[in-house]
Amino acid sequence: MVGKILIVDDVATNRIVFKVKLGAACYQPILAADGESCLRLAHEAAPDLILLDLMLPDLTGIEVLTRLRADPVTCDIPVVMISASQDEDARLAALAAGADDFLTKPIDDLLLLARLRNLLRAREAVTELGPRGTHLHALGLAEGRADFVGPGCVALVAERTETGMRWRKDLTGVLHDSVLVLSREAALVEGGNGAAPDVFVIDADLGGPGGGLRLMSELRSRAATKHAAICIVRPVVSVESTAMAYDLGANDVFSSAVPPREMALRLRTLLRRKRLADTMRASVQDGLRLAVIDPLTGLYNRRYALPQLAAIAERAQEAGQGFAVMVIDLDRFKAVNDHWGHAAGDAVLVEVAERLTENLRKTDLLARIGGEEFLVVLPDSDLTDARATAERLCAVMQERPIQVQGGSLSVTVSIGLAISNPARQVEPVADIVDRADRALMLAKANGRNKVTISRSAA
Amino acid sequence: MVGKILIVDDVATNRIVFKVKLGAACYQPILAADGESCLRLAHEAAPDLILLDLMLPDLTGIEVLTRLRADPVTCDIPVVMISASQDEDARLAALAAGADDFLTKPIDDLLLLARLRNLLRAREAVTELGPRGTHLHALGLAEGRADFVGPGCVALVAERTETGMRWRKDLTGVLHDSVLVLSREAALVEGGNGAAPDVFVIDADLGGPGGGLRLMSELRSRAATKHAAICIVRPVVSVESTAMAYDLGANDVFSSAVPPREMALRLRTLLRRKRLADTMRASVQDGLRLAVIDPLTGLYNRRYALPQLAAIAERAQEAGQGFAVMVIDLDRFKAVNDHWGHAAGDAVLVEVAERLTENLRKTDLLARIGGEEFLVVLPDSDLTDARATAERLCAVMQERPIQVQGGSLSVTVSIGLAISNPARQVEPVADIVDRADRALMLAKANGRNKVTISRSAA
Repeated sequence: MVGKILIVDDVATNRIVFKVKLGAACYQPILAADGESCLRLAHEAAPDLILLDLMLPDLTGIEVLTRLRADPVTCDIPVVMISASQDEDARLAALAAGADDFLTKPIDDLLLLARLRNLLRAREAVTELGPRGTHLHALGLAEGRADFVGPGCVALVAERTETGMRWRKDLTGVLHDSVLVLSREAALVEGGNGAAPDVFVIDADLGGPGGGLRLMSELRSRAATKHAAICIVRPVVSVESTAMAYDLGANDVFSSAVPPREMALRLRTLLRRKRLADTMRASVQDGLRLAVIDPLTGLYNRRYALPQLAAIAERAQEAGQGFAVMVIDLDRFKAVNDHWGHAAGDAVLVEVAERLTENLRKTDLLARIGGEEFLVVLPDSDLTDARATAERLCAVMQERPIQVQGGSLSVTVSIGLAISNPARQVEPVADIVDRADRALMLAKANGRNKVTISRSAA
Repeated sequence: MVGKILIVDDVATNRIVFKVKLGAACYQPILAADGESCLRLAHEAAPDLILLDLMLPDLTGIEVLTRLRADPVTCDIPVVMISASQDEDARLAALAAGADDFLTKPIDDLLLLARLRNLLRAREAVTELGPRGTHLHALGLAEGRADFVGPGCVALVAERTETGMRWRKDLTGVLHDSVLVLSREAALVEGGNGAAPDVFVIDADLGGPGGGLRLMSELRSRAATKHAAICIVRPVVSVESTAMAYDLGANDVFSSAVPPREMALRLRTLLRRKRLADTMRASVQDGLRLAVIDPLTGLYNRRYALPQLAAIAERAQEAGQGFAVMVIDLDRFKAVNDHWGHAAGDAVLVEVAERLTENLRKTDLLARIGGEEFLVVLPDSDLTDARATAERLCAVMQERPIQVQGGSLSVTVSIGLAISNPARQVEPVADIVDRADRALMLAKANGRNKVTISRSAA
């Protein structure tokens, strides 16, 4: 469970120095001396992060990075490029190829470790959502996520409006995203309008020393902006202040003197990672929805309905109110399937579900609990109400035929109804459903297309 | 979407001062002048946090807090008690009743805002998992979570071992959890052993100024400990250092001079919140599992299987390998249900699923894709291998009868097999499954209990 960090450097001494530093910080270092070994180990050892030297004997660091990013197995691993030179072009090339950062030797230990835990923490927040993408892929939402990033929204929050306007001017042309200049207050409120910015670029000393860092913490505590990428910009960047900004959760920290092209490339990488995380979170929510929804009718499924019924019963008991349980079954549904085919049977179920939904209150519980069986729970309801509702449900089924492929057919339902009476002693939920089930059987036995009320509830 | 904060104070001026401060910080303040209003608003307005004065005209702040904690709707809302007095007993009573913090007037604005965003951020991390508990409740895992907290594990990490030992001695007797004294390295490595501590109590200046804060950031970046609760302890607590610790993600910050009873109560509240969050995360993972697993047999469902098949096909194409697809159908299963009942039918499906699982490789894909229909995909497989596997699957079904309630019965399966040949042109996955389906129909037509191979694949 210890973070695995792949160190790629052709100089043995460098590898050993990194290995000692990272080992002391309780990481698990893995070593590679050339580009091909890096690519192989990135696949086999599944490192959590890669420290990649720019100059390697077989491939350039950029080539290795490009291949890592093109491979679905390795495309999401954070990569920090390490270089001995201050070469600006190499820096831009590395950022363009998708490096998460570019550090120039000699590298301060405090800064290196802060950057590593910062990148690992961001990665943990995403990977914990699913076991390495397996389920998300399964849910059919993880497709085509790696490369495409549509236009995003970048918000610039600077102490002086002129600075913000200059940043925007710099970025226009190199960034194909919408760029806003916002005040501190607008940054906090903007999220409330529904479309929160994807990335915030914030002046570190907004409204006084450390004000930008506090704004970052504020944004992180709010629902609309907590997953935004945040960059902290300082006139002068020191090791301590940068390390602190990383630990406070900044996704990137750079000097206000950084060339616009570099700033744009850094924002682009952050946008890509942010979009990926958004997709994964959406997949998780979809997955949860799938666990409680019947895909055919869109109604809740049995798994959802039974605990909800228990909760309704509990609340009814506390409030001293009655409630009603109906079990509804389609009459002669097997004949529909046999005669018209399964597609027609499905169409009938969908139409029945719609008619039920239209004729119940928002607060009623409606679920499909079996092939052609539905459960309805009416909170705060007595026999008179519930019987009227059940009769109405019966009536709306037969009042007009259901259109299916190849014709139209008449459908009726039988309904068993049981009332939980607050004046009597507490009855287990399963017993109430049993009573409704037995009443349903009586309705079937007595000719179908009718409501039967459980005797003991009368 | 703006954070709603309920301010409860009987003095109008105090309410207005808080309202102005929180409004300026872009929160939405809601005001209550007494305990009953607080309880009502906590229900109706669903605030994200409550600032609760200790002295109210109708109820004491402790009574209000106790009732908030006893109500399932409000039990998780963070509550910060506010008091004008330094009364130690009131402080302990509030913490014992479940207050998340206890602040004494006058309250420094910097500290107040840091604490609010800190608590709101922690809350956001939990509530985003599900829409306010609805789905989690539905998944049947959110039951009985509010009150019970079994023994947890608290790790003490102090600069000097004596300090750690003293803390442990102080806590023994007041805390019914296991308490460990760990070094910095052990704290980082301990998580790797599977049972990471629930709470870390860390000396702020461990190994030098700010060392404890850096350890906290390290723990947050590691899979095993990222969700642990973390308390920062300082000999002298200043407003700035406390605010910074909150923004760095500390769940609590207190002085090393705090009485052991208070420390124990604070740890207990953190443990309870941490356990709640653990339960919610487990529910989410369960929910995701439910979305891809057939609950009867434990096999993957159709929703999972089809994208996985597409992924296998893609990898096979890249590697220039063949793969095989089988559609397996139980013979005369309807007769089993009709004659033996649905429970027996289910038992048969479970046993068939087990025999299939036992006779396939870990790397093969096996899913239940219909009532009595299974899909098997064999990656890196040719006709000879796949035919042998399919024949074996047929054989293991009939070799011994399946025990069900009321007797035992013989079951056979028919299998349609299609091979994707790397030498041919790429064939859409749906076409391969269609071929297997047609081969299955031939197997059925030719007497069942046999394997039929799709002609065009031979």
